[in-house]
Amino acid sequence: MTETSAPEPFVILVRPQMGENIGAAARAMLNFGLTRMRVVAPRDGWPNPKAVAMASGASRILEHAGRFDTVPEALAECHYVFATTARSRELTKPVMTPERAMEHARALAAEGKRVGLLFGPERTGLENDDITRADAIVTVPVNPEFPSINLAQCVLLLAYEWRRQAGGVPPEVMAMAGTDFATNIEVEKFGDHVEEVLERAGFFFPEKKAPSMKVTLRNMWGRLPLTRADVQTLHGMLRQIVRWRDGGAA
Amino acid sequence: MTETSAPEPFVILVRPQMGENIGAAARAMLNFGLTRMRVVAPRDGWPNPKAVAMASGASRILEHAGRFDTVPEALAECHYVFATTARSRELTKPVMTPERAMEHARALAAEGKRVGLLFGPERTGLENDDITRADAIVTVPVNPEFPSINLAQCVLLLAYEWRRQAGGVPPEVMAMAGTDFATNIEVEKFGDHVEEVLERAGFFFPEKKAPSMKVTLRNMWGRLPLTRADVQTLHGMLRQIVRWRDGGAA
Repeated sequence: MTETSAPEPFVILVRPQMGENIGAAARAMLNFGLTRMRVVAPRDGWPNPKAVAMASGASRILEHAGRFDTVPEALAECHYVFATTARSRELTKPVMTPERAMEHARALAAEGKRVGLLFGPERTGLENDDITRADAIVTVPVNPEFPSINLAQCVLLLAYEWRRQAGGVPPEVMAMAGTDFATNIEVEKFGDHVEEVLERAGFFFPEKKAPSMKVTLRNMWGRLPLTRADVQTLHGMLRQIVRWRDGGAA
Repeated sequence: MTETSAPEPFVILVRPQMGENIGAAARAMLNFGLTRMRVVAPRDGWPNPKAVAMASGASRILEHAGRFDTVPEALAECHYVFATTARSRELTKPVMTPERAMEHARALAAEGKRVGLLFGPERTGLENDDITRADAIVTVPVNPEFPSINLAQCVLLLAYEWRRQAGGVPPEVMAMAGTDFATNIEVEKFGDHVEEVLERAGFFFPEKKAPSMKVTLRNMWGRLPLTRADVQTLHGMLRQIVRWRDGGAA
């Protein structure tokens, strides 16, 4: 499901409270291709029916999730651990943006290292005792005046960055609805067509301004990203307007 | 609230259904510093008490939100419009990642251009008739096997990218808990201290291996990112162990 054969990080929910949030976290993971969840001392036991209901199509993540009693057990075979937390000034530890953290996670994974992402309980977040087990802190750069994001949103942003760091998605493509851009000669011929019709219609007046008016029009056609279909539509419009003017049948 | 004086984009919710989702979208906006919402033909009228309840601390966004009957009215003074949609192959239009789209939005805003971000109704998303009004499409690069993200999550990801594109957040800093990294001489003196204690303890045995054992230890101290506080702690540990060995008082 991931873009590379590198191992994907464990998403480790520490003492999660509401089943709904566990389920929403599973959905957020799967949205961006993460599938390995671990839960540490979930408040309402395990498995959690509310989590399964909320996870819906992502419930197989819960079925395969490991359940642990303590954070050290859940982290045992991880080589590198990120702790997500907003508070970070109490421990000497690198603090990274999600972007930088997942870039680093990708590099570690490419070396075959197992990476863990720790998320704390909904209300209180991770405790210092949990954070001491981590190699680095990840802090989402939220608006300091309104910093509250929920557990699933935090998982979503990290999963999004994990997937984004894989690259492979071109930043910009042009969706072409069964057509292609017009070639230069097609645009040129359309320009001829317009000019011919406008000549007949007496548009280029006064005559001394005609050359500059024609340049303006040609430049417009050249500047617009017209498709072949656009050019055909425009030709058809012009032809029909001429027929209508000439009193001919459609 | 934004990092620059450039105008921030309008978040335009088209025919939103559930008040809770409108409120959650307002929260997601404010999490990353966006404050300008517009709603087009909300299903349950406007203002919407459920939206206000869900928005909680972000309810002032709803209070200031503009309410419009049609998409063209909501977009009237926008210079550039992004339509968020997963389906995109039916119209000839640029399709961008959130990253590229918000990079472009930042550039437009820096030129004083007003940018609109269109989000469709929860179940169906934007219709083609809405999308034709946009300059470009934004598609979140979700896992094609599990692509369903909700309205507020989609707003969250765009708002996150808007804020991320502002830069200003260093990708990695070292949080220092009231201390600084130890200087070279401090680490050197600690190395001396360890060596002295270990000499007494008969650690460097056999004698011919002592030089390489010492090199190994010195290299370890030099490699570890020890803080001044760490070094003091380690000195204290050593001293106490020696006192304990010598039968002295603590």
